[in-house]
Amino acid sequence: MDTRENNSPIFPQGDKASPDYFTGMTWVKMLVAADAGLNCQIGNVVFEAGARNNWHTHPGGQILIATDGVGYYQEKGKPIRLLHKGDVVKILPGVVHWHGASPDSAFTHIAINPNAQKGIVEWLQRVTDEEYNHFK
Amino acid sequence: MDTRENNSPIFPQGDKASPDYFTGMTWVKMLVAADAGLNCQIGNVVFEAGARNNWHTHPGGQILIATDGVGYYQEKGKPIRLLHKGDVVKILPGVVHWHGASPDSAFTHIAINPNAQKGIVEWLQRVTDEEYNHFK
Repeated sequence: MDTRENNSPIFPQGDKASPDYFTGMTWVKMLVAADAGLNCQIGNVVFEAGARNNWHTHPGGQILIATDGVGYYQEKGKPIRLLHKGDVVKILPGVVHWHGASPDSAFTHIAINPNAQKGIVEWLQRVTDEEYNHFK
Repeated sequence: MDTRENNSPIFPQGDKASPDYFTGMTWVKMLVAADAGLNCQIGNVVFEAGARNNWHTHPGGQILIATDGVGYYQEKGKPIRLLHKGDVVKILPGVVHWHGASPDSAFTHIAINPNAQKGIVEWLQRVTDEEYNHFK
């Protein structure tokens, strides 16, 4: 019986994310397209240390599954939450939030966008360094 | 910068799956409940070598993300497909199928059930040893 653990990343790194919506280097590997007949878009996202996306909302909500490194997640008006491998974040439709890596570690998560027939994402303003560095 | 890889499993093993619907030891860790407001149920499933679920369908479809080991996936009337870490399976609503570990390796996948408002799963007959051993 093969019991070897394989500690390589689960997915290839993917394509560079748009600098219009991300601060710092981020890569996205699309896994399931929104039009695949499942109303569910799925991608794997790799953030270098310090990288994060803009504030945004999802019309159909989102689930994040942290798989490697140490990340940040914040909903508007709440403190930044630290994310580690195995953490799952449930984001209800319309909730203003952002996510990314922590300052000293890269971070990888799977991003699941259910109810894709309602739309995928609505981008808002950039997360400032002041907001990003507010973690306590 | 912390670049260490952590090769422990992403999720804890979870609870034993029902022997009514699974052949061989299988564990399920629920990650997102169907009633969490996202119309999307997500669980992590660990199959010991040789274990598999019954034939079944999903009214809202399903996506499998293989994360460890070597697995089997089969749709009715098609050959068994071998699954490795990083493979993604898109299963349309109503498609009769089963999945599980290969004979010589445990297997872990994340199971994503979108459109959960339409129902999660409809179980059918057990996968026989003859069907299971039909991989070429």
